[in-house]
Amino acid sequence: MTKKTGFQPNWRETAPEALSFRSIFKWGAPAVFKHPNARLFELLKSTFSLNDEDFKKRSREGDENVVLTSECHRKLSTEQARFLENIVGKENIQSDDYSRVKFSTGKTMEEIILLRNTTSGDVCDLAVHPRNKSDIQKIVAYAHEWQIPVYVYGGGTSVTLGTRPVRGGITLVMTTHMNRVIEFNETNQTITVESGILGPDLERVLNQAPRLLGARHAYTCGHFPQSFEFSTAGGWIVTKGSGQMSSYYGDACDMVISQEYVTPAGSFKTLDYPSTATGPMINDIMKGSEGAFGVLISVTLKIFQYQPGNRKRFSYFFRSFSEAITACREISQGGFGMPSVLRISDPEETWVGLKQHGIEGTLLDRFVVRKGYIPFERCLLIGHTEGESGFSRNVYKMIKKICTCHGAMSLTGYPVKKWEKSKFADPYMREDLNDFGIVIDTLETAVTWDKLHRVYTEVRTYITSRPQTLCLTHCSHFYPQGTNLYFIFIGRFPTLDDYKSFQLGVIEQIVKSGGSLSHHHGVGKMTATLIGKHLGKEQMAVLKALKAHFDPKGIMNPGGTLGLDQCVHEYHTTGAAPINVKLL
Amino acid sequence: MTKKTGFQPNWRETAPEALSFRSIFKWGAPAVFKHPNARLFELLKSTFSLNDEDFKKRSREGDENVVLTSECHRKLSTEQARFLENIVGKENIQSDDYSRVKFSTGKTMEEIILLRNTTSGDVCDLAVHPRNKSDIQKIVAYAHEWQIPVYVYGGGTSVTLGTRPVRGGITLVMTTHMNRVIEFNETNQTITVESGILGPDLERVLNQAPRLLGARHAYTCGHFPQSFEFSTAGGWIVTKGSGQMSSYYGDACDMVISQEYVTPAGSFKTLDYPSTATGPMINDIMKGSEGAFGVLISVTLKIFQYQPGNRKRFSYFFRSFSEAITACREISQGGFGMPSVLRISDPEETWVGLKQHGIEGTLLDRFVVRKGYIPFERCLLIGHTEGESGFSRNVYKMIKKICTCHGAMSLTGYPVKKWEKSKFADPYMREDLNDFGIVIDTLETAVTWDKLHRVYTEVRTYITSRPQTLCLTHCSHFYPQGTNLYFIFIGRFPTLDDYKSFQLGVIEQIVKSGGSLSHHHGVGKMTATLIGKHLGKEQMAVLKALKAHFDPKGIMNPGGTLGLDQCVHEYHTTGAAPINVKLL
Repeated sequence: MTKKTGFQPNWRETAPEALSFRSIFKWGAPAVFKHPNARLFELLKSTFSLNDEDFKKRSREGDENVVLTSECHRKLSTEQARFLENIVGKENIQSDDYSRVKFSTGKTMEEIILLRNTTSGDVCDLAVHPRNKSDIQKIVAYAHEWQIPVYVYGGGTSVTLGTRPVRGGITLVMTTHMNRVIEFNETNQTITVESGILGPDLERVLNQAPRLLGARHAYTCGHFPQSFEFSTAGGWIVTKGSGQMSSYYGDACDMVISQEYVTPAGSFKTLDYPSTATGPMINDIMKGSEGAFGVLISVTLKIFQYQPGNRKRFSYFFRSFSEAITACREISQGGFGMPSVLRISDPEETWVGLKQHGIEGTLLDRFVVRKGYIPFERCLLIGHTEGESGFSRNVYKMIKKICTCHGAMSLTGYPVKKWEKSKFADPYMREDLNDFGIVIDTLETAVTWDKLHRVYTEVRTYITSRPQTLCLTHCSHFYPQGTNLYFIFIGRFPTLDDYKSFQLGVIEQIVKSGGSLSHHHGVGKMTATLIGKHLGKEQMAVLKALKAHFDPKGIMNPGGTLGLDQCVHEYHTTGAAPINVKLL
Repeated sequence: MTKKTGFQPNWRETAPEALSFRSIFKWGAPAVFKHPNARLFELLKSTFSLNDEDFKKRSREGDENVVLTSECHRKLSTEQARFLENIVGKENIQSDDYSRVKFSTGKTMEEIILLRNTTSGDVCDLAVHPRNKSDIQKIVAYAHEWQIPVYVYGGGTSVTLGTRPVRGGITLVMTTHMNRVIEFNETNQTITVESGILGPDLERVLNQAPRLLGARHAYTCGHFPQSFEFSTAGGWIVTKGSGQMSSYYGDACDMVISQEYVTPAGSFKTLDYPSTATGPMINDIMKGSEGAFGVLISVTLKIFQYQPGNRKRFSYFFRSFSEAITACREISQGGFGMPSVLRISDPEETWVGLKQHGIEGTLLDRFVVRKGYIPFERCLLIGHTEGESGFSRNVYKMIKKICTCHGAMSLTGYPVKKWEKSKFADPYMREDLNDFGIVIDTLETAVTWDKLHRVYTEVRTYITSRPQTLCLTHCSHFYPQGTNLYFIFIGRFPTLDDYKSFQLGVIEQIVKSGGSLSHHHGVGKMTATLIGKHLGKEQMAVLKALKAHFDPKGIMNPGGTLGLDQCVHEYHTTGAAPINVKLL
């Protein structure tokens, strides 16, 4: 262990310049920061054999203004650009370098690394801000005619290269205009919104429905992914996202009653019945289409009565990961409904979490250790219930009963409140670590209960077998038949190629040991080369048949999305040409 | 009103002869009967201006042995038949007239009428009883090569001409061999079964899991359609069925974790993760495919802990249909979970139900009327809760609170117990009525809450505007966003053509007023000509693209299924040639 020195690293506290690379890759609001605390800093130093000196000077901060290299020349002709201008108006088209990069880039680690090195992947020719469905119909029809690629940019929080263009073309920016509430239907308990609406805008309208809409109740959308503040309703659905409260409210896809699309093969709005027996549901077929079939225009979502006063918080220490998992399985299968938040940290994440929250080493901690809840074995479970008050109370009671039965010790609602405060803030720490050459990234998977321990052990072994690499794991989305595994890894990588090769290894290990390719991040272009094997050729052929139907000329989000066309994102592993982008 | 005479109609009490038409169309078990009681009989007489004399002689009972007319000649060659024999063995192929009719016929009213007239629609050439997936793979590959139609027969309870062949070919009978439990996975709370397993066989294994499978708990499949005793797990899924307990357990499709199919475009088993973000789900795409994409081989279903002791029964009288609906909407949107059974009868069904159960006119009834629950206005709500005991109690409590708030009077659990006893038995009454020239049939739809009253009123007006036609309606599947409407109509029709013309009018009225084409009966070949308009051409084109992918030569359940190819089932309305089949 390194000695504690009282030294504080030179974490950056200034917002990025307006037109800089950093303004594109920095997470969230420009002037908001969340720095690792002193204990986490000590952990980083000891893990990576660094000292205070190493945390004095930040590097590759990306403060340079965005300038595109000559390689990124436009592929659209002047006539084509003018035609598009005529559709949406001059003020809704951007062709400057900054806009082209900004609206071509998500939050994938690879993209961040490139931007920090003042370079970018391929970019769109034009960022177009459509005003309505009619604009998009005209644009898609024109693009189809002239075979111009069309990309869709929502909140830009994809971590799977979901927004990366690969052949120039048009990126539709949905948040600028197409962010309106179209219909609030209290009788049906639904809201219809344009796909570009951001999480907080949607949630605000619903929470304040009595005042803003004259509703009898206040409502919630129930969907709170970590990206909530910066992602869009459309993005949630086309990538099959899950929120932190999915165990009670469902995944994004479960909330979708109906969708309206514009595709090269025509426009349509799916049926909005709560259930019908009229053949395979087009509404389901479009979920997860990641922009490769068409553009999601609007969506009708289920909403839920907002009753925050009924929330009941709980947290428990378990003596082992295995006992915590068994308890959560019994909770998920108990037939009494689900808590809204349920979250188990594995021993390593528990260890880091206690550091972060200042609990490690306290009197309380020592008491707990004596009770048999040993560091590196013990696991923290946190969560809260909601819904109608009697329902919420009963779920709380049953969770207590099950946890106690598996040897858990209650830690009150305190750790949950801590977690709630920072539940959207953790991604801010990424820039701090990156500024000192440390990569923090995540990969995630869905597992059935019977495969959970195998996937957990094999993937964790793979990650931690790399020297000086931390791996924190949790489960946070629960179903009667299984859960997810969310792997956070922290390491140092000499080059982008080294990083990508490691990342590919983790993904391959996840799938090999029995996990799905993704639980809620989607496929994008990042893991597109792997989906064919994951689904098998017969099922990939079904997706390709749908692609051929909706988009026969391959203009919708081309470049490998969902493995539906030639993937231009290659993992550079042994034998392939390394990308000459340094990280250290 | 006719006078009560004490006369009992000559309801049939003998099982059909083994090889008769009647043995094919009679509902359920051959020697099981449920006759209308005396009050219902009086109602029929008064409604149709009939007298006791009219109920002495049954007609068109279909006791004749099945003999096919020369029109139904085989279309398969001797070599083809021999090739199929080599696959499954001689003992698993039937080409006799009786088998060809039996395995070509469901329980659609039209089919029953034809059989009663000792005729049938088109029939298959061969009934083939495959033993396993490999048999089916060989058969489908051969049929694809030689363009031989392939139909799938599960329990044969379709009421939408789902099993009707139209061009000869092969019908695969799934219940003979492919009815096995493949895997019981208690950790994941799933069971994998072959698609031909019947409801009671599945439920028995689950209820007795501790004894039969060494399980820790007893389980239930949670799916109890009225056809439960005679329908198959595969049939539930490919037609998108709903059980009487769907409000708690979900519709059939909600229970499906994974499916295995054999199609002309190859065989595959869909991913079995509880949730994944890997593009549009093939598992969803196959649900509701009604045999038009391929053959469902096996399915992995969610199962639920079986806790019948926690069931709590309730029933309420409401002063009006509208108050009952509002209460059920509030129940469905309350955030406390759902009861397993919830069922509102409209005033007319309530009136008939009270007759049937002998409550009408009793002391209790007179008391209730004085309290303002007036015949032809009042509505009966029945149901029960289940799940974990605290959950079940809380749902029960909340239902009581909401119903009371809407002016309802509790009638205890007694009417529910009555209903439970006969919940699978009502279809037996159909033969009794048919024997005396009275048709009883049903049509159903899904509605959002805001359209419910319009659909209810307009469809009911349409039905009851026909002279001497009863219309009983209920809602029995509830969602936060809406429910279903189930219309039972009873009438006399001179010819099959008259009947079909009326039926078409009801369906058109359902769709016109805002209901879906079906909530849980499926589309089959019966309403196939209407689905194109219902979905719109853009969405029909998606289904057709999938059809072209899975079944490029159109051999899977051809003849109009889901509107995917040329529909041979025409509604003979004014101007078209009438079918010369008499009903009276």
